[in-house]
Amino acid sequence: MESVAILGTGLLGTSVGLALRAAGFQGEIIGWNRNPAHAERAGRMGALDRVAVDAMIAAREAQVVLIAVPIYATLDLMEQLSVALGPEHLVTDVGSTKGQITDAADRLFNTPERAGFLPGHPMAGKERGGAELGDANLFRGAVWLFTDFPAWHRSEAASALARSWREWVIAMGSRGIDLDPKRHDELVAWVSHLPQLAATALSAVLEDQVGDAPELKDVGGRALREMTRLGASPFSMWRDIAHTNTESIDAALQALEQHLAHIRENLRTPELREEFERANRFRRE
Amino acid sequence: MESVAILGTGLLGTSVGLALRAAGFQGEIIGWNRNPAHAERAGRMGALDRVAVDAMIAAREAQVVLIAVPIYATLDLMEQLSVALGPEHLVTDVGSTKGQITDAADRLFNTPERAGFLPGHPMAGKERGGAELGDANLFRGAVWLFTDFPAWHRSEAASALARSWREWVIAMGSRGIDLDPKRHDELVAWVSHLPQLAATALSAVLEDQVGDAPELKDVGGRALREMTRLGASPFSMWRDIAHTNTESIDAALQALEQHLAHIRENLRTPELREEFERANRFRRE
Repeated sequence: MESVAILGTGLLGTSVGLALRAAGFQGEIIGWNRNPAHAERAGRMGALDRVAVDAMIAAREAQVVLIAVPIYATLDLMEQLSVALGPEHLVTDVGSTKGQITDAADRLFNTPERAGFLPGHPMAGKERGGAELGDANLFRGAVWLFTDFPAWHRSEAASALARSWREWVIAMGSRGIDLDPKRHDELVAWVSHLPQLAATALSAVLEDQVGDAPELKDVGGRALREMTRLGASPFSMWRDIAHTNTESIDAALQALEQHLAHIRENLRTPELREEFERANRFRRE
Repeated sequence: MESVAILGTGLLGTSVGLALRAAGFQGEIIGWNRNPAHAERAGRMGALDRVAVDAMIAAREAQVVLIAVPIYATLDLMEQLSVALGPEHLVTDVGSTKGQITDAADRLFNTPERAGFLPGHPMAGKERGGAELGDANLFRGAVWLFTDFPAWHRSEAASALARSWREWVIAMGSRGIDLDPKRHDELVAWVSHLPQLAATALSAVLEDQVGDAPELKDVGGRALREMTRLGASPFSMWRDIAHTNTESIDAALQALEQHLAHIRENLRTPELREEFERANRFRRE
């Protein structure tokens, strides 16, 4: 892998540029963003060698193309890239749900005549986005999920680039795990989307209750700050996740509502102990 | 204030001993614990000058008596202390709910012939208890709530000790806030008990879902760790809180269930944006 194009220079795209450099990547990093000012900022931070004004031109000039935009925008770029690129390219992404993206990859990429597509999902982020929060250490200690199908008939060049990208993921400090895309979307509904929506709901409840008395937020201390930190997450990113993983998220939310109701109905019975012990076990293992 | 007895040398009691010393308290600190081995450990950590084998003897030998045990045990000690102590003593506590404790203080203390009682509640803690986690900085930057009644007819000696104790609370790094006990219990149901029970419910849900696959917990990353940290909290402490603040906690849990259901029913509608914006406002102010 000698050149990378990063399409989307928000938190994740900028962090990948910085992390590749920190891991010793010597090749060229080209950046593109719908808003060129954001790409310029990522460039000034050292995440990019240069900024391209057109996403397809940037992609054609790189071996590996990383899409780092929300899910529906990823699907749009995939349509364009499948026409613009040939089998000497590998496209990969960072989308938080993988069902639709993996389906599109199957339809649009991964034949001997087309570019390869490796669906990826680094389990890393911050509660706010933007190039200015870009961080070379963002992926250190994180899991980077892949939902690749071994049966795909990818070109040799794209296959070699996919292996190379996986090596750079490790070099950036992450651990790769391969999952079936359906299993991926179910799993992240529980371990990622549910915690986010719990924090959103809790923050919204508290805004209703003490939003007019900001001094009372201090009373909650560390526990409150921690449990509502993700309440700052932007709708713009989570809308696409809610739309593309609705069924699994619905099931996870229902399960949480049921546990909360069970706790509420047993505030004075021994059943409460069982809920605490179940929770304790989760943290102990 | 020249001498303090700490009854209960768990996380909070031990931390108070360490924090008083760090703040320059020169007087004697006597410790008692139902399990003497725990008091010995707090002593070895520098939180105590000596360990007493009897709580009432320790209390009689000190001007200020800090009760740092769960709520029902606090109410038991209050009964004993009201008989054992005279007006030259001040008793204070760290209980997480204040309705019953303040009622008992009104009934048992704060006459000219009896010891004074200043109900207190430092908004600080960790998800696990025990002397070994004691920390001189635990109260730094925290709010220390008081639910005192100005109308009480406390002895002059006890009143002076109450002022002195408030000064030491500030010296330990906390900010004192005075609240009506009823308002206290309603407020902490929202900003403390609800976040705890949300973490317990979320941890219990995840134990059901991925408890048999510990490697999948890593997938969730920082967000999951943070949202379930309080899942490790012990039932032994929270049972008393649930029993003594049931009505307010019930209302808070119901509100959270309703917000989660609202999110679930609107995963694909514009209403979802409003919940995110409400949550964003809570974090912005």
